[in-house]
Amino acid sequence: MNTAAILHRPESEYAYLYKKDTMHIRIRTACNDVKQIELLHGDPYQLDQLVMTPMNKGLTTSTHDYWEIEIGATHRRLSYAFKITGLDDSTLLFGEFGFSDFNEETIKAANNYFRLPYFHEADRFKAPEWVKETVWYQIFPERFANGDTTNDPEGTLPWGSKEHPDREDFFGGDLQGVIDHLDHLVELGINGIYFCPIFKAHSNHKYDTIDYLEIDPDFGDKALFKQLVDECHARGIKVMLDAVFNHMGDISPQWQDVIENGENSPYAEWFHIHEFPVSYTETEDFEFSNDINYDTFAFTPHMPKLNTAHPDVQKHLLNIATYWIKEFDIDAWRLDVANEVDHRFWKKFYDACTEVKPDLYILGEIWHSSQRWLEGDEFHAVMNYPFTDAITAYFLHKTVSLPRMMENINAQLMLYREQTNQVMFNVLDSHDTPRLLTLANNNKALMKQVLAFTYLQKGVPCLYYGDEFSMTGGPDPDCRKCMVWKEEQQDRDMFEFIKALIDTRKAYQPLLSEGKLIWTQADEITGLVEYVYQTKSGELRATFNSGNEAITLNEPTGVLTQLTRSTETQTIIEPYGFNISVINTRKDN
Amino acid sequence: MNTAAILHRPESEYAYLYKKDTMHIRIRTACNDVKQIELLHGDPYQLDQLVMTPMNKGLTTSTHDYWEIEIGATHRRLSYAFKITGLDDSTLLFGEFGFSDFNEETIKAANNYFRLPYFHEADRFKAPEWVKETVWYQIFPERFANGDTTNDPEGTLPWGSKEHPDREDFFGGDLQGVIDHLDHLVELGINGIYFCPIFKAHSNHKYDTIDYLEIDPDFGDKALFKQLVDECHARGIKVMLDAVFNHMGDISPQWQDVIENGENSPYAEWFHIHEFPVSYTETEDFEFSNDINYDTFAFTPHMPKLNTAHPDVQKHLLNIATYWIKEFDIDAWRLDVANEVDHRFWKKFYDACTEVKPDLYILGEIWHSSQRWLEGDEFHAVMNYPFTDAITAYFLHKTVSLPRMMENINAQLMLYREQTNQVMFNVLDSHDTPRLLTLANNNKALMKQVLAFTYLQKGVPCLYYGDEFSMTGGPDPDCRKCMVWKEEQQDRDMFEFIKALIDTRKAYQPLLSEGKLIWTQADEITGLVEYVYQTKSGELRATFNSGNEAITLNEPTGVLTQLTRSTETQTIIEPYGFNISVINTRKDN
Repeated sequence: MNTAAILHRPESEYAYLYKKDTMHIRIRTACNDVKQIELLHGDPYQLDQLVMTPMNKGLTTSTHDYWEIEIGATHRRLSYAFKITGLDDSTLLFGEFGFSDFNEETIKAANNYFRLPYFHEADRFKAPEWVKETVWYQIFPERFANGDTTNDPEGTLPWGSKEHPDREDFFGGDLQGVIDHLDHLVELGINGIYFCPIFKAHSNHKYDTIDYLEIDPDFGDKALFKQLVDECHARGIKVMLDAVFNHMGDISPQWQDVIENGENSPYAEWFHIHEFPVSYTETEDFEFSNDINYDTFAFTPHMPKLNTAHPDVQKHLLNIATYWIKEFDIDAWRLDVANEVDHRFWKKFYDACTEVKPDLYILGEIWHSSQRWLEGDEFHAVMNYPFTDAITAYFLHKTVSLPRMMENINAQLMLYREQTNQVMFNVLDSHDTPRLLTLANNNKALMKQVLAFTYLQKGVPCLYYGDEFSMTGGPDPDCRKCMVWKEEQQDRDMFEFIKALIDTRKAYQPLLSEGKLIWTQADEITGLVEYVYQTKSGELRATFNSGNEAITLNEPTGVLTQLTRSTETQTIIEPYGFNISVINTRKDN
Repeated sequence: MNTAAILHRPESEYAYLYKKDTMHIRIRTACNDVKQIELLHGDPYQLDQLVMTPMNKGLTTSTHDYWEIEIGATHRRLSYAFKITGLDDSTLLFGEFGFSDFNEETIKAANNYFRLPYFHEADRFKAPEWVKETVWYQIFPERFANGDTTNDPEGTLPWGSKEHPDREDFFGGDLQGVIDHLDHLVELGINGIYFCPIFKAHSNHKYDTIDYLEIDPDFGDKALFKQLVDECHARGIKVMLDAVFNHMGDISPQWQDVIENGENSPYAEWFHIHEFPVSYTETEDFEFSNDINYDTFAFTPHMPKLNTAHPDVQKHLLNIATYWIKEFDIDAWRLDVANEVDHRFWKKFYDACTEVKPDLYILGEIWHSSQRWLEGDEFHAVMNYPFTDAITAYFLHKTVSLPRMMENINAQLMLYREQTNQVMFNVLDSHDTPRLLTLANNNKALMKQVLAFTYLQKGVPCLYYGDEFSMTGGPDPDCRKCMVWKEEQQDRDMFEFIKALIDTRKAYQPLLSEGKLIWTQADEITGLVEYVYQTKSGELRATFNSGNEAITLNEPTGVLTQLTRSTETQTIIEPYGFNISVINTRKDN
């Protein structure tokens, strides 16, 4: 047995409270190395009354098998160890002290057991229930719709007048424009909007905040924003704002004060300044200097990093965080560059925000593994790039094999608690990346296939504005084109497809959220890939043809399809096609 | 290569800030499976300027090798991945997405890298500096010394009048007794006292608190306690109190109010009560009932568990926690049954206490692996039972082999950050276990050997009162005998030994705290075991004979020895003997 590969970590995603009285326990072994694992468990104060329960083999990667079990405990506390049976029927006891022979003596040794000392609801990772049911829509406000030309900044260009917008262009998009088009979102089935920053800032993207307590005048004012939130809520749409708390814009009054007054500025300690006066050497690249005497976002001198360990900065930012919840009733915060801010600050942020609104959703922008932020007292989820990257790498870029995509997806799911996975934020494109259709080489069938594959997974999907009309665009700033509102430019077929996909997602979401992922077919040669999300009450089966030839399935045609044909007993899926079927469950929305 | 065994976890004990500008990175591989590991690292925003630095192979278990490196970063942020070279010279890149071939393309892929996004001093695990320099002494107040007979409870027995104290006995020990004997501790070299509970309670052990804001009248009063702390501080002795916050005694006014008023009690939500009225079925065992309708410590109906998620309970307990720091200047809290209280409470406790006294030491009673509590915002250390258990299992109980002892010690050290290991609380016996000499079968040479082996390790040792006079005692209550103050009953030889050992520990503590542990010799047949703690400036070498025959060493006789003889170039160590030598370092206390 490959004992060196066996891993369990108490009080982590390997052992956690799932529901109030239910614990999930996982263990990882080398791939195809272990025949069976049984959990030996009982009350820590009654170890003479142990019970042995078999664990289930779950997801797999090229290196590991993951085993899982759901379990309770009468007195809300648990001692547990693992009886591991190898392929050769050898058995071992695995616990706190590593490996022992499995015998009466080792079973009795209390210090061989891992512990979940008490089931504390206070410590349980709790995500707001509504998030699972949400399909998000990302709006880059300057480019969604110009609803009020009176607030257009100087030099605003006519809407859509440039095929390829430049970095510094303004087109007059604003909040009134969003209000004007809410019914478009309702028609599509959207029930959550993720807004890129709307606070007073310098640029068109507004990530260089000047004043977090003001709506950018190019976009409107507070009264209008309140109206926007109310109109959204009236339509069952949640509102998420983007908070840029890692750094400030250098035009902010605080940084300007530092420039003017140096170490005598009341804001001198708000930043990470190495020496006064603050300075940097300009380069040809506006956003780069390797000679900055203060910490910044990346190497841009225009975004000085905030010292979030300073009490005044904390007070300032937490006031902002709660202000927009209390006064405007927003439902979620998306936290920009969240990984570069300290954990202690985020814990205070979590406490302050959830005290005001217990079901607020807190989403961090983190591109890498995020376990430390997802223990239940910082964020509910992160932007799930590693998950969607696996999908795009296989379907769009063809840079990974089918097994590699599957194992990357599996590995991501095993990084987090189940309740975290249910609310992870799955984005295929955004204001920071090329658009999905462009990534798909303008192949609309492929785009639809990727959308279906992503939306019908655990986690919540987010559509980037305009994708529903087949908008295209390369890397930033090209992905930030003006939304097409002229009907003749809108791809209604794509709109109808996405509407149907969202409808399917929402109808069967409980299967995805609560279900167990099982890969049922994967054939790299034909390109057939099929998975199932299974619960006790039913399953969703999703079959995709990612190859070049038609594939014949011995399955009926399902609830959502693309490029399929049916015979009496079979479904034929053409390249780029897919077939989604649902068993034993009725659509319940 | 056994890739399934390779483990790294970002933002954990595998990747953490050690000093303000220095990061420690660890990775684990299968034992004897990997030839070399190099860290590929650089600024996350300049991945074209990566550097490759070889890692050091460190501690080993029967399953794993651990590799380590200490590293900085100009801009206080780091992307990193591992280049792993197998015994067969094959190479792999290991990063966020698992394993890839090591080539130009994979090196360029930003999402292959783990991240330490920013070196936040606020998130760094920081232990008070003074703890490393401390040798603790545990006092069970009822049995240490009776300094004031006027506060003796009714029925107090004459001091030392029973060879084997019974569970309910009182002998009159008190705080005045401690004050009277402080110079004894100073002579021994002690510079920290860990007091078992001294708050108002019912029993002789005082774990069943009645009032956390009163000194138990059997022990004295607040004025006397203040005098005790001042007298300790005047002698350079730190004071640690025992806080029992998991549960209350059932005689407490709060629980009595619940009994009386049921769900109408203002304290009804202070506990975890399943139904009113509260009740339990008595059994022959005072401390056991399997039919209690409220949560308790273990199965004892007399210790109802506190609901530490309730704001009023939090306020009550945090007031207690800060009161004894603010008013009496105590230096440390030892937290009873700390694992069964929620993490959210302990984070608040940490914040409240360290705000009042930034260098307070917070020590949790946890018997199992404690990573989740030791991330820098709950405890500084735990009672390090798994560490000392490894030592006693080998030297005293002979239940584990020499390699198993070594690997258990190594595994414990690899569970935590280096700065945590430096302040872990290493106890060989206590009021809850048989005494060390009794565990050693009354073999004093063996007891001394175990003491030397333990005190000369990373982590801080704690002596149980009376061990310095060779007191004996079986399991509780026998280990709680009255301290022997009659000189003719005191073992002065043991006293002098422990004094010398403490002196040695304190003199060379920086080598142990900052040094790297290397096992230099281990021979199960002869019983020779030798380790070194090595820093850049010197090393401490400790050699033990745990076998039955004399062992000859080609080393000079050192600074502390037992049962050794010297020839011109050699040192002969008899069974139970040891030889401690120090190289290139001068005693600096």
